[in-house]
Amino acid sequence: MWAAFIFSKMKKIAIINGPNLNLTGRREPEAYGTMTMEELVEELRRRFPDIGLSYFQSNVEGELINEIQLRGFAADGLIVNLGGYSHTSVALRDAIAAVPAPAIEVHISNIFAREEYRHHSLVTSACRGMVCGLGLQGYILAVEVLSC
Amino acid sequence: MWAAFIFSKMKKIAIINGPNLNLTGRREPEAYGTMTMEELVEELRRRFPDIGLSYFQSNVEGELINEIQLRGFAADGLIVNLGGYSHTSVALRDAIAAVPAPAIEVHISNIFAREEYRHHSLVTSACRGMVCGLGLQGYILAVEVLSC
Amino acid sequence: MWAAFIFSKMKKIAIINGPNLNLTGRREPEAYGTMTMEELVEELRRRFPDIGLSYFQSNVEGELINEIQLRGFAADGLIVNLGGYSHTSVALRDAIAAVPAPAIEVHISNIFAREEYRHHSLVTSACRGMVCGLGLQGYILAVEVLSC
Amino acid sequence: MWAAFIFSKMKKIAIINGPNLNLTGRREPEAYGTMTMEELVEELRRRFPDIGLSYFQSNVEGELINEIQLRGFAADGLIVNLGGYSHTSVALRDAIAAVPAPAIEVHISNIFAREEYRHHSLVTSACRGMVCGLGLQGYILAVEVLSC
Amino acid sequence: MWAAFIFSKMKKIAIINGPNLNLTGRREPEAYGTMTMEELVEELRRRFPDIGLSYFQSNVEGELINEIQLRGFAADGLIVNLGGYSHTSVALRDAIAAVPAPAIEVHISNIFAREEYRHHSLVTSACRGMVCGLGLQGYILAVEVLSC
Amino acid sequence: MWAAFIFSKMKKIAIINGPNLNLTGRREPEAYGTMTMEELVEELRRRFPDIGLSYFQSNVEGELINEIQLRGFAADGLIVNLGGYSHTSVALRDAIAAVPAPAIEVHISNIFAREEYRHHSLVTSACRGMVCGLGLQGYILAVEVLSC
Amino acid sequence: MWAAFIFSKMKKIAIINGPNLNLTGRREPEAYGTMTMEELVEELRRRFPDIGLSYFQSNVEGELINEIQLRGFAADGLIVNLGGYSHTSVALRDAIAAVPAPAIEVHISNIFAREEYRHHSLVTSACRGMVCGLGLQGYILAVEVLSC
Amino acid sequence: MWAAFIFSKMKKIAIINGPNLNLTGRREPEAYGTMTMEELVEELRRRFPDIGLSYFQSNVEGELINEIQLRGFAADGLIVNLGGYSHTSVALRDAIAAVPAPAIEVHISNIFAREEYRHHSLVTSACRGMVCGLGLQGYILAVEVLSC
Amino acid sequence: MWAAFIFSKMKKIAIINGPNLNLTGRREPEAYGTMTMEELVEELRRRFPDIGLSYFQSNVEGELINEIQLRGFAADGLIVNLGGYSHTSVALRDAIAAVPAPAIEVHISNIFAREEYRHHSLVTSACRGMVCGLGLQGYILAVEVLSC
Amino acid sequence: MWAAFIFSKMKKIAIINGPNLNLTGRREPEAYGTMTMEELVEELRRRFPDIGLSYFQSNVEGELINEIQLRGFAADGLIVNLGGYSHTSVALRDAIAAVPAPAIEVHISNIFAREEYRHHSLVTSACRGMVCGLGLQGYILAVEVLSC
Amino acid sequence: MWAAFIFSKMKKIAIINGPNLNLTGRREPEAYGTMTMEELVEELRRRFPDIGLSYFQSNVEGELINEIQLRGFAADGLIVNLGGYSHTSVALRDAIAAVPAPAIEVHISNIFAREEYRHHSLVTSACRGMVCGLGLQGYILAVEVLSC
Amino acid sequence: MWAAFIFSKMKKIAIINGPNLNLTGRREPEAYGTMTMEELVEELRRRFPDIGLSYFQSNVEGELINEIQLRGFAADGLIVNLGGYSHTSVALRDAIAAVPAPAIEVHISNIFAREEYRHHSLVTSACRGMVCGLGLQGYILAVEVLSC
Repeated sequence: MWAAFIFSKMKKIAIINGPNLNLTGRREPEAYGTMTMEELVEELRRRFPDIGLSYFQSNVEGELINEIQLRGFAADGLIVNLGGYSHTSVALRDAIAAVPAPAIEVHISNIFAREEYRHHSLVTSACRGMVCGLGLQGYILAVEVLSC
Repeated sequence: MWAAFIFSKMKKIAIINGPNLNLTGRREPEAYGTMTMEELVEELRRRFPDIGLSYFQSNVEGELINEIQLRGFAADGLIVNLGGYSHTSVALRDAIAAVPAPAIEVHISNIFAREEYRHHSLVTSACRGMVCGLGLQGYILAVEVLSC
Repeated sequence: MWAAFIFSKMKKIAIINGPNLNLTGRREPEAYGTMTMEELVEELRRRFPDIGLSYFQSNVEGELINEIQLRGFAADGLIVNLGGYSHTSVALRDAIAAVPAPAIEVHISNIFAREEYRHHSLVTSACRGMVCGLGLQGYILAVEVLSC
Repeated sequence: MWAAFIFSKMKKIAIINGPNLNLTGRREPEAYGTMTMEELVEELRRRFPDIGLSYFQSNVEGELINEIQLRGFAADGLIVNLGGYSHTSVALRDAIAAVPAPAIEVHISNIFAREEYRHHSLVTSACRGMVCGLGLQGYILAVEVLSC
Repeated sequence: MWAAFIFSKMKKIAIINGPNLNLTGRREPEAYGTMTMEELVEELRRRFPDIGLSYFQSNVEGELINEIQLRGFAADGLIVNLGGYSHTSVALRDAIAAVPAPAIEVHISNIFAREEYRHHSLVTSACRGMVCGLGLQGYILAVEVLSC
Repeated sequence: MWAAFIFSKMKKIAIINGPNLNLTGRREPEAYGTMTMEELVEELRRRFPDIGLSYFQSNVEGELINEIQLRGFAADGLIVNLGGYSHTSVALRDAIAAVPAPAIEVHISNIFAREEYRHHSLVTSACRGMVCGLGLQGYILAVEVLSC
Repeated sequence: MWAAFIFSKMKKIAIINGPNLNLTGRREPEAYGTMTMEELVEELRRRFPDIGLSYFQSNVEGELINEIQLRGFAADGLIVNLGGYSHTSVALRDAIAAVPAPAIEVHISNIFAREEYRHHSLVTSACRGMVCGLGLQGYILAVEVLSC
Repeated sequence: MWAAFIFSKMKKIAIINGPNLNLTGRREPEAYGTMTMEELVEELRRRFPDIGLSYFQSNVEGELINEIQLRGFAADGLIVNLGGYSHTSVALRDAIAAVPAPAIEVHISNIFAREEYRHHSLVTSACRGMVCGLGLQGYILAVEVLSC
Repeated sequence: MWAAFIFSKMKKIAIINGPNLNLTGRREPEAYGTMTMEELVEELRRRFPDIGLSYFQSNVEGELINEIQLRGFAADGLIVNLGGYSHTSVALRDAIAAVPAPAIEVHISNIFAREEYRHHSLVTSACRGMVCGLGLQGYILAVEVLSC
Repeated sequence: MWAAFIFSKMKKIAIINGPNLNLTGRREPEAYGTMTMEELVEELRRRFPDIGLSYFQSNVEGELINEIQLRGFAADGLIVNLGGYSHTSVALRDAIAAVPAPAIEVHISNIFAREEYRHHSLVTSACRGMVCGLGLQGYILAVEVLSC
Repeated sequence: MWAAFIFSKMKKIAIINGPNLNLTGRREPEAYGTMTMEELVEELRRRFPDIGLSYFQSNVEGELINEIQLRGFAADGLIVNLGGYSHTSVALRDAIAAVPAPAIEVHISNIFAREEYRHHSLVTSACRGMVCGLGLQGYILAVEVLSC
Repeated sequence: MWAAFIFSKMKKIAIINGPNLNLTGRREPEAYGTMTMEELVEELRRRFPDIGLSYFQSNVEGELINEIQLRGFAADGLIVNLGGYSHTSVALRDAIAAVPAPAIEVHISNIFAREEYRHHSLVTSACRGMVCGLGLQGYILAVEVLSC
């Protein structure tokens, strides 16, 4: 599927999700809703049939860097939600800055209404912009922006 | 027009813009583009014909509070871009928290890629979410979210 | 009424309320009670018939400065509750320090039991004292002190 | 007298004064006036004949905790002025938070117009409110509030 | 007079004074002297007959922004003394940065010999330079520089 | 009993509890449970019949120092829970460091999940280790460790 | 063995060790002793024959998250010693908070008697409690607590 | 002896020692030497036969305040070594500032060559001067200065 | 090749490169030059034929720890450039400190002339020294030092 | 010439320039212009023929102190530009404060628009005022002020 | 005289005074008294006839380092008062630490009762001890200590 | 010799050493070795016969600035080890930035493994790179780099 992604002639957008986001829809549904990321990706593919959409999730920081390097050279846009690594990882910030694809940072919850240590994302300044607090809809908006 | 807004049966969304945003489209076009806020509002009305959209801009902090109080009780959603006041105003934060309408914060530029003192917005934690760095498109996304 | 205030021979006390205090009694009644500021002023006039009591509220920082300058030269005492501006305004502090009338700062809620950024008031050091956390009764106490 | 206090049917208010307040009226009279705490208590008893008023002062932090524990379960209200311990004692804060009687913090001088290290009181957030800078009158106001 | 100012062919310099500066000459004369701003403007017009000099003062932050926007596009130079707002206003800084006229910041007193919170001006970095501590003469020097 | 303690041939462990811990079992039972310290000591004596266990509690910082000095030279181990003094007392830290008996710090609640000012204990670095958040069981574990 | 663990009817406790803890017993034996983690696990199994004990160690942050997610849903309790990641990982904290099993944090050495940057653990506030400085015995205590 | 001290016609100097200084000469002799405070006082009386020298030590902060208040009104000079309380006690500072006798602060060890939290003494600014790092000789020097 | 490395009788030096350094020579060539790490290793082998040189790169923090543990016991020296992890990883610092081989830290760019958050490396204090800002030549210098 | 300066009956003003200012006109002419300090002094002497103007430059902090001491007792005014020492030298501040001549601080560039560590001058609070960002014209303004 | 100093058989003590101390006795006599350093040295020689006492003062930091290096190898003790350099000079601290003679730091005034930036001396931790606030008598005490 | 240096046709490299480095080889030989700087320079001249190598050391900050200005215009490269001034001198940083020769900063010891205040060098960002912790070999490496 990944090769298909790279050689596709469609506009290519890669979603890269970080630690614990594999639990979305299963953990604290009152805060995060009950839709899983898999369901979201399906929904996105339905809504944006002309976009080649790839999805990757890992809890391993370095695998996220690997994929940002890979997809960031191949795709037309990155959507990154790096979870808890957003607040601590210079290395992920460097990876995003190193690839040509523009990136949009998404956070499902409003990180500025949570603990102090979530108020600062090292990653944002390497992205084009950020959407937070709008739930899974944040991903839809990000695809919209990158697909223009 | 304002009375029309309040008594309209349409879903009502109020955009409230703060200091210096009256210069949008005229100041630093390479950074902010050449579209003015007036043109944006027209565009929004064209795109969302079923939404009652009101627009207010002021450079005066207290007038912004006045309008947030007024429209925040009447509207179904607020879109706020409080410019330089975002980083310093507890009073604006309190106004947003005091009204029932949910608010979305928008910043045209990526405030996290600018000076240190722009990295913190006192207002965000009183809003549902934030969109930044996506240019005037940020307003379009915010209307989309609030109109759901 | 203002002229009456200035030329009155009674002891003159001016209450100056800042942003969002016009919502008192209407906003978060469980925290702030249901008495409005208008009702409070009436109550104060009933309790202190020998005091010339003036009341002013504005959401505009500069109008608050204007009134502190005006009333601070004419009155025998100021009671100031500058709401969210208390924590951020050097200019309001300077206005209080510039006028001869002694000022007492009042906060309805206990600002030290709330968010970190409400723990510091720039205004207090220019006042004679401060009363906080005692609800609207704080205004009554302040009038008592200034009327001695 | 203390037993009398506990079994009294009157509304019971306990004043608890901390370090160096035994010197009030004797030390720096230009700042603190010449009335002693003993004279103040007499004055309070004259003014509030229906209130059972107890008074305790100690320079020993732990004895202050002992008394807050004792009186805080027996009295209807506490008035605490913990002097220099206000700025440094988590243990006193915990004692106040542990007892059912509501507490009002009093400071004779305006602590916010003095040295930096007096601007923060660890105790305030465990109290209902605070009165500062109004001299010994602060105690009168506090009794008034608690006797309502 | 304002229209005259805009269409004048003389070199145009606008002085914009912020909060509490309307009290100059009346407040703390031992610190600020007894000359009022009106007298200063007269003096400046006498000294610089070839300069079109406009003067504006307001206690309202947003009105100051309004005027900086207006005069900053029309004038050849701005002289700004934003009083207490200098230390807290990102919005005023943005206004100065948005207009083409070069600005010089003036402070009557030596802000670095006063309270800690006056040592930092957010506005300075958007100006060409700053003069402080030289009394009303600071305005004369600023006109001199801008009139070269 | 204390003399008995000192001359006992059994392994001797002294528990030293600080401010407000005399309220354990009576205060906030949902947080601290309903067992009192006296009941705990009995339980410990039942569980560890071969250990000479002494117990001391005081709200007075200096009395705690006195006892740490006394028991710290006589006992084979100290268990210290200094409550609110843990976060502020250099003097208690010095007392623990001055005596030969190894000390284990116990906190009933998880101090790191509470207010910021409880996250740092000056005492810990003078102890062999710390147990926190495990309720009264923390004392049992500490006796276990010291009795090996 | 892992499947056995999940389907076992015994009380299940999982120990999850982070970076460099594979060197325990081999590195700085004067500080950490000579017992290896493998020997410890054997000892624990001997002492607690009724507990289903699983052990996992990795130097990879993301693999630790994976295992916390896996075992945290299956086990009755987690014992976590995340080594150097304790001080820097929001992502590990989030994983612990996301799973239902209660966690106890263990540190072999007294982290508060070491370098400044080891004094703060981001993980603790998501755990039930913490044991530190008591060597490998800390693990034994933690099993004891969780097996109650 | 204390009464004798107060009514003596000799120059009166009071030494007030704080927590853990009762262990001097017994604790860490390589750092503090083997002379006890009692031996030092004897030595001082031998060296300064014309000085009425009183000595007080307590581990209780409040008792130290009591004695500073008592002796600070009666003596011609105070020598204070408040041990660990020096770094944390506003109340002791206030006591020294409240009494007429000039005070000299003594520390046996060089507090600036020890842990960070010992580098700041709240007490020093209320004293005439400070001597540190010169061992018990510091007391001799302090008596010399006050006896001039 | 790795086994060859371990059993070689030559002096053994291991280069361990962290996140994004696999892009060297491909990313921002004006800053980092066009030589790749592979070319550098070849060059190093040509220059130092008597040194057994091994090279490892990973974007995964834990794999870097694994290799430091493995090679740090086998090699005579380590050369580490941990990229963005240098500024945030206590775990990598611990790994370097745990192995006997002396390490030299290399940074291609001058990290002190870049963003604030790159000015501090947690790793340096566990290394013998550091070379930064000298491009790929830094590696050559490091080999030189370790090969002495 | 220096003797001539001291015994001159003219008003005497001394310019004292610190480190690297000897390069003015030669270094970064686009930032500092091409006029040298020698040319400036000539220009000043031409403009102010009735002023006895002395000039001193040194890169040595102590020589600057020497000259401030010498000239500060002899001159009617000092103009000081202490370059990089402005931000770090308590000793230079003390020298200016110790001499009777009023001083004006000049900086050629706008130090508040440069690196963070240039935003604070220790020297300013000992001067009457400061002029910065106005190029060499700053010196002319300073002479004007001091020659009044 | 210096050679005489080095080869003298007497105990040798060198006093090294830093910036602005040449003004002692002439500057702010109400704070520093009217005795000059020259008179003090004479007085010291009279009091301690068996001590070889050398005196050096410079405003130049590097000359102070030169002399500390020279005299610190030759003398039996150093008395250093480095004035404003005390608070900022790592280099002077290193010089004192590099020489074998023990040093005592003296400050004439109580630096802890002055501006914040004088509360920290980088030099103290390299000295044996410090005396401050005791005027010129501080030097006498220091000689006493070193001459034992 | 200096003139010879300037007019030499060889590649010219100047080593500029700051305070206390004249003691190298004599002070703390276990930390710094026993080779003196003079011996190092000889060694460097032997190793790099084609390089014109000049050496300058001073304890005086301003003389170091003088030499950096002189040699920085004449030489092809500077090697600077400014000792304790590295951490505090903006003026030295400015001198290095003002001259055309590229500079390499050398520190003999690993400044990041020493006291906190040595972890930051103001000078580094004006240099091309830095070498630290590699002893006198650091100078050899620096010459190597600059001689390429």
